[in-house]
Amino acid sequence: MFKLISSEPITSVPGFQAGAVQAGIKTKNKLDLAILYSKVPCAVAGVFTTNRIKAAPVVLSQKHLSSGRAQAIVVNSGCANACVGEQGLADALEMARLTAAKLDIAVGDVLVASTGVIGIPLPMDRVREGIKQIELDPGGGHYLVEAMMTTDTRPKEVAARLDVDGVKLTIAGVAKGAGMIHPDLATMLSFVATDALVGVDFLQSALNKAVDASFNMVSIDGETSPSDSVFLLANGLAGNVPIGFDNGEAFQQALTGVCTYLAKCIAGDGEGATKLIEVRIEGARNESEARQAARTIASSPLVKAAIHGSDPNWGRIVSALGRSGTELTENKLDVHLNDICAMKEGHPTSSSNEKLRMSLSSSDKVLIKVCLNLGAGQATAWGCDLSEEYVTINSEYTT
Amino acid sequence: MFKLISSEPITSVPGFQAGAVQAGIKTKNKLDLAILYSKVPCAVAGVFTTNRIKAAPVVLSQKHLSSGRAQAIVVNSGCANACVGEQGLADALEMARLTAAKLDIAVGDVLVASTGVIGIPLPMDRVREGIKQIELDPGGGHYLVEAMMTTDTRPKEVAARLDVDGVKLTIAGVAKGAGMIHPDLATMLSFVATDALVGVDFLQSALNKAVDASFNMVSIDGETSPSDSVFLLANGLAGNVPIGFDNGEAFQQALTGVCTYLAKCIAGDGEGATKLIEVRIEGARNESEARQAARTIASSPLVKAAIHGSDPNWGRIVSALGRSGTELTENKLDVHLNDICAMKEGHPTSSSNEKLRMSLSSSDKVLIKVCLNLGAGQATAWGCDLSEEYVTINSEYTT
Repeated sequence: MFKLISSEPITSVPGFQAGAVQAGIKTKNKLDLAILYSKVPCAVAGVFTTNRIKAAPVVLSQKHLSSGRAQAIVVNSGCANACVGEQGLADALEMARLTAAKLDIAVGDVLVASTGVIGIPLPMDRVREGIKQIELDPGGGHYLVEAMMTTDTRPKEVAARLDVDGVKLTIAGVAKGAGMIHPDLATMLSFVATDALVGVDFLQSALNKAVDASFNMVSIDGETSPSDSVFLLANGLAGNVPIGFDNGEAFQQALTGVCTYLAKCIAGDGEGATKLIEVRIEGARNESEARQAARTIASSPLVKAAIHGSDPNWGRIVSALGRSGTELTENKLDVHLNDICAMKEGHPTSSSNEKLRMSLSSSDKVLIKVCLNLGAGQATAWGCDLSEEYVTINSEYTT
Repeated sequence: MFKLISSEPITSVPGFQAGAVQAGIKTKNKLDLAILYSKVPCAVAGVFTTNRIKAAPVVLSQKHLSSGRAQAIVVNSGCANACVGEQGLADALEMARLTAAKLDIAVGDVLVASTGVIGIPLPMDRVREGIKQIELDPGGGHYLVEAMMTTDTRPKEVAARLDVDGVKLTIAGVAKGAGMIHPDLATMLSFVATDALVGVDFLQSALNKAVDASFNMVSIDGETSPSDSVFLLANGLAGNVPIGFDNGEAFQQALTGVCTYLAKCIAGDGEGATKLIEVRIEGARNESEARQAARTIASSPLVKAAIHGSDPNWGRIVSALGRSGTELTENKLDVHLNDICAMKEGHPTSSSNEKLRMSLSSSDKVLIKVCLNLGAGQATAWGCDLSEEYVTINSEYTT
């Protein structure tokens, strides 16, 4: 129904432009401040962190989103603008104001996102100068995604093309992830743009569903940051029949496809990660328990460390499942590692550890499949292995 | 009210004996099978894992405990006897039977505990031979604690002496911990013995309280194992007036003291740990939220990695607090690191990062104190830093 194109910039969506600069917020000479802009106002939806500590840009963007309309996003990396008191809100608002003035749009139509170190104020002189210097370009999407990166090792961007009633639509997204990623979002930012004309209520509902199946099923380390935000902007320039709850299925699928692609990019690029882990739960009593089980296994440090060492220690998978709160019957459990059955009906199989180890060590994507054989609930979560490098990165982050 | 004596063996409690052998369950030449025995039957209490996957010895011991009476514990390391189907229960029962026959006591008076790799069956020929060869000795406590160790780097044992109505009582405990430790217990075993005469209902209540304040407040990596067990045996040989709910306060305090001492030993000896982290929460709305906050911070990988690198990245502490589910008001938060104030009423203080870093790097015990200033709820949790060594240990564990 839709076609995914890797590494397509978000500005491949008609009507969107982007630009970025090295404002000097990061100490290194890297892009760290960017704007995404639609030449016409967009219907907008957003999903935010569940952390009770909310970074100032989250507080501001939630307010601006409430109108259902937005036209630009200003984003920086290097400083999260979180836990700095009232100054944080003033700075976030100033970022929105400067961007609005530059683009000649309303302040309330600007969303703000910041990612980076918590507890230090934004260097506003650099931000002011930077916003001034940003040059928007219809091909600027790649710069935008670069400017969002913190410990990400690669940019994450993708586009989906679909055809709705003969009208070609594009949905494209960018994301940054790396550390501190966990269900219910974490220092994760994702912006998705589309030229589809979409009703704002359906847009929010579609984004919620897509995020639940994608970003909320990614875990790097169980953390959830005060800055997580996903924005979806629909500028309607495709001229399609308005998409809503009645006719939104194809749009929903493509949107979920874009978000899932980005979520897997985030999982595979977790700090220090060498392997993407996909955890598939089947046969749970219901979807909610399947999700809980998948997320618990994907975020288990012991499972992640075992996968890092290609150690077929499947007992740790079962142990993580057991503490997930998911209903289970031990002698109904089947566990597969990369399609090799390690446990059948609660009993170890005769699969040799050597065979399992060979399979794990030869794959950079490991599939853990657990069937509970209790019901129809299923879910998939993504994570990554836990390496010494993760610790090294995170014991030196602010230094 | 009581006096703690480090490194005192559990057999310093009158009437208890212990012995251990190298049965060959572990591949290395180390003690791996032991018995703790009281020359008279004991009142007994127990606390077990909350993991829905329960190792066979847990299932069996829960059953044997229901009588309120026990006289011996048989314990092995190297194999958890978990996730091996019906064979596991048969093997655990055989361990109890062999021990009972050796000691000439009832099978139902033997508790069983196993720790080690999940998913492989016990080598019962070695267990049978080992139980035969164990020699009990009134000074055998040190051997018992050695035989329980897996990746522990040091034995954990302590005794408390107290005086109740002129009668001298001893409470002594041993524990093993290291990896997979988290609130609600994890591959953690602890045996506590006392010569006090204690009513069995109070004994269970006192153990629950002690475990809640100690072992359940320790987190190494957020994992909870299928094998966790704490046993408390009271043989009554001290001849004191029976201790119950009316007169149990001094006993409760000493028992909590013993468990807290062992819990801190476990935290400080987490796999790869170089620093003990103590998280103190004050001013929460209630104790339950304080506990939740303390445990979430103590188990945050990002906080743990920062402490490992002596990185005063206190924003991660606030972020972990924010996702803990504890009610908070950002501009009421005070955060101290080793008694240096890093955040006051939600604002960063002027404490230099350099001062914080110096303090962190010069201490092998780091105190994180968070005051929410909302109510009277308080709690303390213990954890350890996250080091590259943790990952190395856990990516090689079964290999």
